[in-house]
Amino acid sequence: MNDFDRPQPIDAAVTPRFVGPATFMRLPLRSSPVGLDVALTGVPFDGGTTNRPGARQGPREVRSQSTLIRRTHHVTGISPYDLVAVADIGDSPTDPFSIANSLEFIEEFFKEIKAAGAVPLAVGGDHLITLPILRALAQEAPVGLIHFDAHSDTNDTYFGGARYTHGTPFRRAIEEGLLDPKRVIQIGIRGSSYDANEHQWACDQGVTIRYIEDVMAKGVDLIMDEAIKLVGTGQVYLSFDVDAIDPSMAPGTGTPEIGGLTTREAQLMLRRLQGLNIIGADVVEVSPAYDTAGMTALVGATLMFEILCLIASRIETESGYGRE
Amino acid sequence: MNDFDRPQPIDAAVTPRFVGPATFMRLPLRSSPVGLDVALTGVPFDGGTTNRPGARQGPREVRSQSTLIRRTHHVTGISPYDLVAVADIGDSPTDPFSIANSLEFIEEFFKEIKAAGAVPLAVGGDHLITLPILRALAQEAPVGLIHFDAHSDTNDTYFGGARYTHGTPFRRAIEEGLLDPKRVIQIGIRGSSYDANEHQWACDQGVTIRYIEDVMAKGVDLIMDEAIKLVGTGQVYLSFDVDAIDPSMAPGTGTPEIGGLTTREAQLMLRRLQGLNIIGADVVEVSPAYDTAGMTALVGATLMFEILCLIASRIETESGYGRE
Amino acid sequence: MNDFDRPQPIDAAVTPRFVGPATFMRLPLRSSPVGLDVALTGVPFDGGTTNRPGARQGPREVRSQSTLIRRTHHVTGISPYDLVAVADIGDSPTDPFSIANSLEFIEEFFKEIKAAGAVPLAVGGDHLITLPILRALAQEAPVGLIHFDAHSDTNDTYFGGARYTHGTPFRRAIEEGLLDPKRVIQIGIRGSSYDANEHQWACDQGVTIRYIEDVMAKGVDLIMDEAIKLVGTGQVYLSFDVDAIDPSMAPGTGTPEIGGLTTREAQLMLRRLQGLNIIGADVVEVSPAYDTAGMTALVGATLMFEILCLIASRIETESGYGRE
Amino acid sequence: MNDFDRPQPIDAAVTPRFVGPATFMRLPLRSSPVGLDVALTGVPFDGGTTNRPGARQGPREVRSQSTLIRRTHHVTGISPYDLVAVADIGDSPTDPFSIANSLEFIEEFFKEIKAAGAVPLAVGGDHLITLPILRALAQEAPVGLIHFDAHSDTNDTYFGGARYTHGTPFRRAIEEGLLDPKRVIQIGIRGSSYDANEHQWACDQGVTIRYIEDVMAKGVDLIMDEAIKLVGTGQVYLSFDVDAIDPSMAPGTGTPEIGGLTTREAQLMLRRLQGLNIIGADVVEVSPAYDTAGMTALVGATLMFEILCLIASRIETESGYGRE
Amino acid sequence: MNDFDRPQPIDAAVTPRFVGPATFMRLPLRSSPVGLDVALTGVPFDGGTTNRPGARQGPREVRSQSTLIRRTHHVTGISPYDLVAVADIGDSPTDPFSIANSLEFIEEFFKEIKAAGAVPLAVGGDHLITLPILRALAQEAPVGLIHFDAHSDTNDTYFGGARYTHGTPFRRAIEEGLLDPKRVIQIGIRGSSYDANEHQWACDQGVTIRYIEDVMAKGVDLIMDEAIKLVGTGQVYLSFDVDAIDPSMAPGTGTPEIGGLTTREAQLMLRRLQGLNIIGADVVEVSPAYDTAGMTALVGATLMFEILCLIASRIETESGYGRE
Amino acid sequence: MNDFDRPQPIDAAVTPRFVGPATFMRLPLRSSPVGLDVALTGVPFDGGTTNRPGARQGPREVRSQSTLIRRTHHVTGISPYDLVAVADIGDSPTDPFSIANSLEFIEEFFKEIKAAGAVPLAVGGDHLITLPILRALAQEAPVGLIHFDAHSDTNDTYFGGARYTHGTPFRRAIEEGLLDPKRVIQIGIRGSSYDANEHQWACDQGVTIRYIEDVMAKGVDLIMDEAIKLVGTGQVYLSFDVDAIDPSMAPGTGTPEIGGLTTREAQLMLRRLQGLNIIGADVVEVSPAYDTAGMTALVGATLMFEILCLIASRIETESGYGRE
Repeated sequence: MNDFDRPQPIDAAVTPRFVGPATFMRLPLRSSPVGLDVALTGVPFDGGTTNRPGARQGPREVRSQSTLIRRTHHVTGISPYDLVAVADIGDSPTDPFSIANSLEFIEEFFKEIKAAGAVPLAVGGDHLITLPILRALAQEAPVGLIHFDAHSDTNDTYFGGARYTHGTPFRRAIEEGLLDPKRVIQIGIRGSSYDANEHQWACDQGVTIRYIEDVMAKGVDLIMDEAIKLVGTGQVYLSFDVDAIDPSMAPGTGTPEIGGLTTREAQLMLRRLQGLNIIGADVVEVSPAYDTAGMTALVGATLMFEILCLIASRIETESGYGRE
Repeated sequence: MNDFDRPQPIDAAVTPRFVGPATFMRLPLRSSPVGLDVALTGVPFDGGTTNRPGARQGPREVRSQSTLIRRTHHVTGISPYDLVAVADIGDSPTDPFSIANSLEFIEEFFKEIKAAGAVPLAVGGDHLITLPILRALAQEAPVGLIHFDAHSDTNDTYFGGARYTHGTPFRRAIEEGLLDPKRVIQIGIRGSSYDANEHQWACDQGVTIRYIEDVMAKGVDLIMDEAIKLVGTGQVYLSFDVDAIDPSMAPGTGTPEIGGLTTREAQLMLRRLQGLNIIGADVVEVSPAYDTAGMTALVGATLMFEILCLIASRIETESGYGRE
Repeated sequence: MNDFDRPQPIDAAVTPRFVGPATFMRLPLRSSPVGLDVALTGVPFDGGTTNRPGARQGPREVRSQSTLIRRTHHVTGISPYDLVAVADIGDSPTDPFSIANSLEFIEEFFKEIKAAGAVPLAVGGDHLITLPILRALAQEAPVGLIHFDAHSDTNDTYFGGARYTHGTPFRRAIEEGLLDPKRVIQIGIRGSSYDANEHQWACDQGVTIRYIEDVMAKGVDLIMDEAIKLVGTGQVYLSFDVDAIDPSMAPGTGTPEIGGLTTREAQLMLRRLQGLNIIGADVVEVSPAYDTAGMTALVGATLMFEILCLIASRIETESGYGRE
Repeated sequence: MNDFDRPQPIDAAVTPRFVGPATFMRLPLRSSPVGLDVALTGVPFDGGTTNRPGARQGPREVRSQSTLIRRTHHVTGISPYDLVAVADIGDSPTDPFSIANSLEFIEEFFKEIKAAGAVPLAVGGDHLITLPILRALAQEAPVGLIHFDAHSDTNDTYFGGARYTHGTPFRRAIEEGLLDPKRVIQIGIRGSSYDANEHQWACDQGVTIRYIEDVMAKGVDLIMDEAIKLVGTGQVYLSFDVDAIDPSMAPGTGTPEIGGLTTREAQLMLRRLQGLNIIGADVVEVSPAYDTAGMTALVGATLMFEILCLIASRIETESGYGRE
Repeated sequence: MNDFDRPQPIDAAVTPRFVGPATFMRLPLRSSPVGLDVALTGVPFDGGTTNRPGARQGPREVRSQSTLIRRTHHVTGISPYDLVAVADIGDSPTDPFSIANSLEFIEEFFKEIKAAGAVPLAVGGDHLITLPILRALAQEAPVGLIHFDAHSDTNDTYFGGARYTHGTPFRRAIEEGLLDPKRVIQIGIRGSSYDANEHQWACDQGVTIRYIEDVMAKGVDLIMDEAIKLVGTGQVYLSFDVDAIDPSMAPGTGTPEIGGLTTREAQLMLRRLQGLNIIGADVVEVSPAYDTAGMTALVGATLMFEILCLIASRIETESGYGRE
Repeated sequence: MNDFDRPQPIDAAVTPRFVGPATFMRLPLRSSPVGLDVALTGVPFDGGTTNRPGARQGPREVRSQSTLIRRTHHVTGISPYDLVAVADIGDSPTDPFSIANSLEFIEEFFKEIKAAGAVPLAVGGDHLITLPILRALAQEAPVGLIHFDAHSDTNDTYFGGARYTHGTPFRRAIEEGLLDPKRVIQIGIRGSSYDANEHQWACDQGVTIRYIEDVMAKGVDLIMDEAIKLVGTGQVYLSFDVDAIDPSMAPGTGTPEIGGLTTREAQLMLRRLQGLNIIGADVVEVSPAYDTAGMTALVGATLMFEILCLIASRIETESGYGRE
């Protein structure tokens, strides 16, 4: 396997991090997912935002901050670029003026990724983007979901009937049979709610909700053991809304809720997911206009790297691929 | 006429400016335009934005900074609150998920204002809001337009066919017969264009475009004399996109173009419009997430006061109203 | 009981959060506390500030960020607006040029609230405002105090004799017999001190000081159990200086001290106070000019909601009120 | 005359500007004005502020940014440190809790400067500080005043009778006989006013007000010729409120008004004052918490240098001092 | 000539500006200058900075903001992408730890550009980068220079002998025979100087210095006519230090000087240079850490586009190239 | 011992914190370390920075924020100014254009401090400054090191051979025999690495690395017990890179890594070092251009105070000095 087959990031020990246009992880920019094991991509769409928009600018800033990430995970020792073929494939098409068009464009884009045999790792955009990604990835059978967020995002409608918003993707996904609710766990949920029964529908479907209070009470290990058991060995999608993290660590987001996860907790939780059958993942709701010194984009980029290591390690284990 | 009839702002020489919830100009909040001569209102909609969203938060921040405005114009001596009944009537309904719904809701809201006999002075929101306002105000006959902006906003479509965006309102308004293009003047236009013929359509309709280079060459007085002559004594709408102002003075906007109008020029130009038959006006594209220390919202609030003085003075002159 | 009797916040699932002038929790603005169970109010005074002023602008920004708060507490299920009558009654009069006048104006304002039978929940302003509030509420008998802060605020004087500052309110309150020092507990105290005996006077009076180190060592539950036992069933005032929270989570304050409470701890501690006989409360020292993306104001608004739930629940329990 | 007699700034071509504690112009810090021709000093007091406080932090930040200023004026060729003895003498005492005490402390401090034979060049602080400075410098006979500002600051009272505020110093100074109103000119005045007669009192005393519109219409040269003629050869005080400058160039101030002077205009105007008998000067209302990247403090420091050159050149011309 | 030969920017009317990794002007990224007429490149080096570093991050942020630039110049009607082959060729190698290495690497990189027959248009980096660029481009014969800057950058040494700094490049370039001093003009110079003779050396060589005061006095047209006459029809290099622009419009720079050029002036001046034989150009000293909302990077990107139009138009005129 | 012998900070209860030029801890500025027990100093050098420069401005901003620190430690009761003679001695000479010169200048400066018998407590500057400090302090025999950091800083070279960078100081120090690697412990290490063996060299020498994961797993007490045991009673240097702290609490730094130490942990860990034989210490990598509201500089100043208390207490215990 040559360098084209397994693209390598620009080495920050050779070329400083501030050099050159920014791509995800300083990887080459490819025009197609063909030949890749993992496709890094942006979905610059925030048309589903109920309050403060701006996540459409997330992918570009996460690219910028991702230039700070080096090649090897300091705990697991995983160097994903040694294991799998991964590159930046640019951004999904979207239509800022049409939710319907955007849902369609995004779904098509991720179908191509899937068709190429690559696992997509996407940066939003607002949380609505997860719906068309799931439509692309889970069209054959419902998948499991590990979902980090301050909000359950299982509301029915907003503002007199809007069904496709960043507060509703997981309701739609369950309704559409894309998710198996019994294999869905939501972690870090908190904040005041619209009404006392806001999460009733999700619970009725079998969704497991772990509030931030549960995380504090049980600790991250127990919560994740539960998650792992819940999703089992089947296909699972991983969705990380950056507002799961406390606003002090991730101020650049549209719907901050105080009292959130620390990045340390988030990293420990993600690392525990080693070995899961992750078919796709996203980091969403990074909204640069509210950020400070790129802090939230750096959180996004680092979590993306954590997830990339999970995916790469699993692919390599499954396939024997990567070991020459 | 009692105080209810002619609402008065809270006096900053008595109650400091930082006291109390912020309404436009510290005026009372009314639930209806009935009984008002001028209705101050917000239109928190930015669904027509092609690049950086956020103008939906404009009305609230302009309200905050408008608490810095005192009651009398230092050049003309006009105290609008002595002349006419003016209040804050809250914000127009909008639907962040539907351009179509929003166009309809805004039109209805401004029809009510018109039906109440009040002149609306609106704060956006992105520039698309001017279209439904014109639909409400100009349904009987086309009106004239004095339009300050960095951009002509007369493009046809975006992103594969979108017709209702903040780059197209004046094309639609001309097509719909809401504006008389021969009585339309655009001032401060600048910045690179999509193609060399971008303004051809507008010019073909008879629109007068005065680039920033024209303002520099001729001076503000000649430009405004031309504008006044052009719109004549008929009904005229006044639309001020804050990006007409240089980004150093108005950084909080979505599509900044360097080399813009100074606020001094803008103020001189607006003051020259004394006596015009202004049937409505707006200040749009204030986008707080990009602002610095409230500077752009203060520009918006101050221009709003300049326009309010124009409208109040004209109403008072026309009607004899205000002189007891 | 009709809607006037129990005002309701604007529903963010119907009308987006960025719409309209900002009041506390999007509640109606009332001109009087009469008829209310709980009166939300601002005290925009920072004349007692020893270092960086600016808290006078706290109430307005907390109002803005409070538009992010929804109606139901996600842990306790309490919807305060179902239980009690609560509204925004605007701001207390103050005099930025006279500490003496301000103390008097604030005291009068809170006496009116008390006379109306409402429990005040105030947003400062600097911490000196708690003194006149206590003068209004505790004139008959000393009350207990649960006080979250980085600083004890029991110094005697500053700068050659100033007795009324934001570093001295609780000393004055104890001297004036407004507080029963044996029922006073201060939590989160930290930071370098003027001298080694700075807290001696307070301790000599019987005040219980729990430093941040105590919180770390014992955990929030034990600390709060102690607080609850200490204040007992009698009347208690709750005062939350936002600088109790770590500066990373609450940068917008005048006297930051590193190593503070997390918001998670603060929320857990407040929730444990369910059932106390709270006769009034405040959140103080939010200073927007030092804030980042409204983060500190959001902390203030969320803590305010936590406290509102405590007060509403207690009133409802006591009175049977709210259950129709 | 040795180096002690004529202190020299640290040379930025030798020691970089970011080195060492910041004093005004990188000059030595002296504990007394004795032996100096010009005393640079701060007056960190903002107790007279009607709206947004924070100018108390002005002197420290102006010191920081003044490290960017080199030793020679690029137009006039004046190197003040070659001509006169000038140093940083630290800050005037103030009392943040007492306007009365502060007025007294500041007056005493400037009397000492005067007694030492030094010309004070002060950095505020809010504009109220000019009153006690004038009390110190003009106790024998009224002086002239060249006053750059967005506001006339000749109101009578605020908030129910406050006489000593940053909106009233020049009224008090005229009433107290410190200023000869016929030798007072105010330049750059603008912004909405409390009422149509706000400037009537000042005009009645004989004060000359030149609005920003006058500056635009006549140009800076004519305005300054008028000022020079007006103040004549007698003693004159120079007061520069940084809000005279446009908020885009000086955002860090408490009462911004759009449409202000450019720094280029301000520099041209100041340079024209060569040869006046300036007995003291100040630059006030720099409020760092509202500043961006130190921009306003840099404006303050640069204007301070312009004024220092005027004063140094005049002293040297008068006395023959400086020419060895 | 096909699309590969003449690369086209992504069209913002089709694909929104926030989509995809950012390259200069949204042009394709090429790995070599071969086949290009104009090579856009970054030189991320700030090792020559005497005060506030950070310009190494300039190229990346200018790339980001350049996504706001459309394809056609609104005044001249020039669409450079129709006329010449232009692309982003990535950044020059540099060594952040060695000025000597960096000078060498940069020179080599620009020699390659020259060898490929392309005109380089570079974004700094600090102003020292112009020296190695000139070494690459002017090795055969001295060239003329049109230089916009607040500083002459013709000092000899800093800090005890440093000869290669951002304050000395043009002295070195003249000494090395790269520039013909009689064909060098510096425009916008201002700010205090290290000593009264700071510009003497440059003047002695024949350099023409036009201070900001000259620009104000004569107007931009006369100044540029002089520049054009001075450089004549020979080869000329164009260097634009963004600190030539006023800090209110370009705060993101390391050595701001108040009282600078406006962007309107800068644009008018650049446009007047139509037809000059420009062999290379740069925009330097954009320092993002001091910027506000990308404002300075946008200034840099827009000036870059102005210069690109000049170069493209000249190449097309000379060669007949571009006209099929 | 008189006041000159034991300098006292300006008392913030007498003179407000915003008064006067800022020195470390508001202590007097001395021109020499002679007569001091502890010398507070800045080393404004960032020439070793691999990515985002700016730490050269650290000392000045830490001085500013250190004005918030009072005189007594609230936990230990230590008032260092009662125990030892400590002052601000200004900044070390550096050469921004030469790493070699800077290494030499810094070493000389610290040799003078050592020769005067004072313990240096330095503020950087980037982490390379620790190397010349160690050369000055450890020339006779290798010392131990307690090192808080996100990065091990034991790389060999960067960018093709650079040996003296902020990523390599501890490798050089071990190679040069300045540190006894068996008495070196690094705490808080984390973040992706250049390769899987990045820390191998350090471990091979005997360095103890405690990753953030170790801190989380074992708790701060066990980690510090280990550190104390490791360094023993011999001479030890203490180096605190502010990026050890989480970026939410210390955003103003050049190489942030998420998931860092909290300030509470850092304070607890430092306090546990009571009694160690600390011969010098530093706090490095505070980079103000990336900071928010001075937050990181305040962290730096507070940690500096924690360390000062350790040093002062030890000196006093050793010498009996301080007890009259």
